[in-house]
Amino acid sequence: MKTSIATVSISGELPEKLEAIAKAGFDGVEIFENDFLAFDGSPRDVGKMVRDFGLEITLFQPFRDFEGMPPSHRQRTFDRAERKFDVMQELGTDLVLVCSNVSPVSLGGIDRAADDFRELGERAAKRGLRVGYEALAWGRHINDHRDAWEIVRRADHPNIGLILDSFHTLSRKIDINSIRSVPKDKIFIVQLADAPLIDMDLLYWSRHFRNMPGEGDLPVTAFTAAIAETGYDGYFSLEIFNDQFRGGSTRSIAADGHRSLIYLGDQVRRLPNSKRLNVPPMPDRAKVKGVGFVEFTADETDAANLIAILKTLGFRKTKIHRSKKVALYSQGDIRLLVNTEEKGFANTSFAVHGTSAYAMALEVENAQDALARAVALGAEPFRQPVGEGEVDIPAIHGVGGGLIYLIDTRSDLGRFSEIDFIPLEDEAAVLVPANLERVDHIAQTVSYDEMLTWLLFYTSIFEAHKTPMVDIIDPSGVVRSQVVENDSGDLRLTLNGAENRRTLAGRFIAETFGSGVQHLAFETKDIFATAAALRQNGFRPLPISSNYYGDVEARFGLDPELTERLKAENILYDQDEHGEYFQLYSSTFGEGFFFEIVERRGYHGYGAPNAIFRIAALKKQMRPGGLPRE
Amino acid sequence: MKTSIATVSISGELPEKLEAIAKAGFDGVEIFENDFLAFDGSPRDVGKMVRDFGLEITLFQPFRDFEGMPPSHRQRTFDRAERKFDVMQELGTDLVLVCSNVSPVSLGGIDRAADDFRELGERAAKRGLRVGYEALAWGRHINDHRDAWEIVRRADHPNIGLILDSFHTLSRKIDINSIRSVPKDKIFIVQLADAPLIDMDLLYWSRHFRNMPGEGDLPVTAFTAAIAETGYDGYFSLEIFNDQFRGGSTRSIAADGHRSLIYLGDQVRRLPNSKRLNVPPMPDRAKVKGVGFVEFTADETDAANLIAILKTLGFRKTKIHRSKKVALYSQGDIRLLVNTEEKGFANTSFAVHGTSAYAMALEVENAQDALARAVALGAEPFRQPVGEGEVDIPAIHGVGGGLIYLIDTRSDLGRFSEIDFIPLEDEAAVLVPANLERVDHIAQTVSYDEMLTWLLFYTSIFEAHKTPMVDIIDPSGVVRSQVVENDSGDLRLTLNGAENRRTLAGRFIAETFGSGVQHLAFETKDIFATAAALRQNGFRPLPISSNYYGDVEARFGLDPELTERLKAENILYDQDEHGEYFQLYSSTFGEGFFFEIVERRGYHGYGAPNAIFRIAALKKQMRPGGLPRE
Repeated sequence: MKTSIATVSISGELPEKLEAIAKAGFDGVEIFENDFLAFDGSPRDVGKMVRDFGLEITLFQPFRDFEGMPPSHRQRTFDRAERKFDVMQELGTDLVLVCSNVSPVSLGGIDRAADDFRELGERAAKRGLRVGYEALAWGRHINDHRDAWEIVRRADHPNIGLILDSFHTLSRKIDINSIRSVPKDKIFIVQLADAPLIDMDLLYWSRHFRNMPGEGDLPVTAFTAAIAETGYDGYFSLEIFNDQFRGGSTRSIAADGHRSLIYLGDQVRRLPNSKRLNVPPMPDRAKVKGVGFVEFTADETDAANLIAILKTLGFRKTKIHRSKKVALYSQGDIRLLVNTEEKGFANTSFAVHGTSAYAMALEVENAQDALARAVALGAEPFRQPVGEGEVDIPAIHGVGGGLIYLIDTRSDLGRFSEIDFIPLEDEAAVLVPANLERVDHIAQTVSYDEMLTWLLFYTSIFEAHKTPMVDIIDPSGVVRSQVVENDSGDLRLTLNGAENRRTLAGRFIAETFGSGVQHLAFETKDIFATAAALRQNGFRPLPISSNYYGDVEARFGLDPELTERLKAENILYDQDEHGEYFQLYSSTFGEGFFFEIVERRGYHGYGAPNAIFRIAALKKQMRPGGLPRE
Repeated sequence: MKTSIATVSISGELPEKLEAIAKAGFDGVEIFENDFLAFDGSPRDVGKMVRDFGLEITLFQPFRDFEGMPPSHRQRTFDRAERKFDVMQELGTDLVLVCSNVSPVSLGGIDRAADDFRELGERAAKRGLRVGYEALAWGRHINDHRDAWEIVRRADHPNIGLILDSFHTLSRKIDINSIRSVPKDKIFIVQLADAPLIDMDLLYWSRHFRNMPGEGDLPVTAFTAAIAETGYDGYFSLEIFNDQFRGGSTRSIAADGHRSLIYLGDQVRRLPNSKRLNVPPMPDRAKVKGVGFVEFTADETDAANLIAILKTLGFRKTKIHRSKKVALYSQGDIRLLVNTEEKGFANTSFAVHGTSAYAMALEVENAQDALARAVALGAEPFRQPVGEGEVDIPAIHGVGGGLIYLIDTRSDLGRFSEIDFIPLEDEAAVLVPANLERVDHIAQTVSYDEMLTWLLFYTSIFEAHKTPMVDIIDPSGVVRSQVVENDSGDLRLTLNGAENRRTLAGRFIAETFGSGVQHLAFETKDIFATAAALRQNGFRPLPISSNYYGDVEARFGLDPELTERLKAENILYDQDEHGEYFQLYSSTFGEGFFFEIVERRGYHGYGAPNAIFRIAALKKQMRPGGLPRE
């Protein structure tokens, strides 16, 4: 699978773009004309620069408003084409994209267009160049790849071919099976883009909302499989117009693009009866069976605060690490590591302030396979010095910070806490057990610009799907929330994308080290019993506005007695078509970290309708004059 | 015209919102339920707080999924209503909004809905409350105000009325004349919102893109005029869901809202044969006849750099101020003031760094009328100490910084430069005259969040219209550009909204004092003669990539000789259906300020297609290692 990306897909000036594209692992690059025009160097300089980066120019684009021009405009249109050909020869690329005409003066007619392309093919052939024709979804006469193909067929010239773009085909819901009958040698290049499903004007949608395959909702995999069926073995090239990407990190967006193509190839390879694209084989997406541990890093003072809260939550310090200043706190299947080492990853790689949960371990079927897949998809592995006889747990860096450890039960990895840790004498059982059983979900706060990066990262490596995006209203702005989860419920990550620094999420990002775990939710099977135990332990719940309870009672027609109990314990309530949900939050500490306890009675969601009330309550605590920090 | 705004329209927590709403001059406020629920105070507390701010609660909203529920759900729906009524009585408001049902279990039927409302009316009447029914544009059965009105008519209950919302009616292009037949006493409240015309899913459009009347493209004035025809004299209330507003400045958005309603009332008052809404009469929008002057502020060192550039542009220092350190540089009808006073507005109110054009004077028919209108629309007047016998020029603050002076020729204002300034002996004419005739346009860079604020400010005070928004591609992100101009071309302001700090525009905002003039464009009638003169004066043009010229020649089919001349002088070229456009830019200096010289041969636009090349060239100069700063 030969990979390419259009320069227009990422931010930066041309040299910066090319460097990021090469570094991300692409084989080739489409030169978007404006990037070339704005660059202060000759076409030859640009061509040389591209090749010096080890890239091939896969396409020069776009050439607009060519076919079907009236006689008054036809000559000038061909003159324009000849000028583009001049540039292409200097650049050192043989393929140009002609997109279907949108000019109001253009004339319709398949044969007229075919004649124009035949003549253009003749001119191109003289220079050893090729011309690919693409149907824009909003083309004036041609807006369907089947019509474009008919024109290419009738032009009947070896230097004239078809260019297919997933967005133009899928946005118009054109039957992708129509692709299977196109001869592979007439498909000059394939462009790929995904997009979120929002019903809007096609041009507006295309110009602002495109994203990488797998980041949106279009059936790009099926489209690509149809291409593969033709035997096509040329470039798959990303052409993404996206406002966020234009303002985002050049390197990170380029890396996402490459990941998206490799993942796409892998998905097509796995389809039944599909022709394979040439991508390196890699293990299946890793099936997550649980959260092995979550690791906090803190200095001694902050750690003392954290530990005090963990105790009110009923956690007991059960083990300490053999060689590092790491303590293990447990309850049910939950393991929390508190790392107070002054050196090592936790305190050197990031400017960590206060307490943060910078690492989590995911339990998978086969940790080495999961690592291999992650690396094949461009994730950066993480290694650290390991003491004699201790377990070396495979790990990868998150895309914007943090670490993900991979553990399984088939090796010593599953016994790392027995091998690396020394059990402690049972602490005096002054605390009431809170019956917290497992990690329900991990809530990660990320910059909104990085939401898609994280979604693609998680869903390409792990067997998981993303849920639709939900808007959470923070008093200071909108926060976008989206969930990565698997069918079994053993992997549940909520991602909250903050657009500005004044939102709770935005403030967390600004005050910590970027993307990070902002809260951990634990599951109980009896929220009221847990709440009672916590109360005895001195746990300080997040106080919820009493107005909330009047509404929740009316909204769901709750028994007033239940409402009273909810209110007394500051428990939030929700329902979906599957059942009921109860949420109890801790007060916030440090830079905005907090804990949540949930009980699910069949409920599938995450209490999104309650988020606005939770945020209001948290913000109140964090205001000057709010609750003192612990 | 009684004004109101829904709490959901602006950012912040409830007390902050109410304070801003009161300060902006609204008479009342709609309490959006979630704002109340998230607030940690009783309904009585909220009611008291609202009244303490001098506001009335105009509406409590929304109550969803009420009418047409099947028997299995009907009782609970009425129970829910009774709970809302409880809250309303505590809050101290008598009106609740019921929006048309979107529940999949709801049943259709006009009479069924009317029966439900009749019963609800009975219950409301017992408590002295009223219920308004609004057709959501995406309601399951009812999505047209005409159908909602039919239900209200058949419910036939004095406590049941209609709520009209401009967005729901106009987004579906429903004939607004249908409003004229509704009795005024059955319209319980009117909600207003505008929106940009983008063809997309109605719900998505409504939730994210609404804006203040006059900020969008919907015919809100005609809608309001139809309301006025009924004799309605109740509240006009803004209900705006907008992602930007949710993250924007609470005070500034509230102020925009109030301005938009007053301006709307004024527009309706001016319609022929329209019933008037009760708004204070104010002078007509001021017709701008030219730019009187632009004033720069700088310290002595920066001023010297600026003056050196002005000289290469052919400006001569013609006068100095009687009592202040202000020099007047002129050429043609262009007057530039260079203010090096260390005290006074220019250097105290803002943290000004380097050189900036912080004030402009607009020539209008009647400056006192323009000032009166601006003040009636909430603009803040500006006064400064004036020396004995000097002219006191009326002025207003811009919405995000800067000053706008208002001058006319009917008073001493027109002679301010004769009265306040002392002519200088003619400077030795070492410079070649550049034939710059007038200010063509003033380019203002603003934070993207403030774009709509500025557009409404300018178009409500001055007789001008806005052009559609254009996306300008900066290597570091998208910049949105929109123009405020009048028909005569005497007022031309381009507003560039920067979303991030890495774009050229964003950097300018970050490094100066917020919104400000980033470039000034002067008009010449002969760009080549001007360019030749400038060259002799040592003017340093902005170097444009030579690739640009190859493309521009092909694109417009230019005579190669012309292309050569353009290239030699670094002149950019564009065409529209009216004619040709030539643009010559200066190098940048200070924090990114620059000058432009244009020649219009009938052309109406601003060279938007060239912006990408101009930005690339400017950024190159501003890079470390680029051109040294002057």
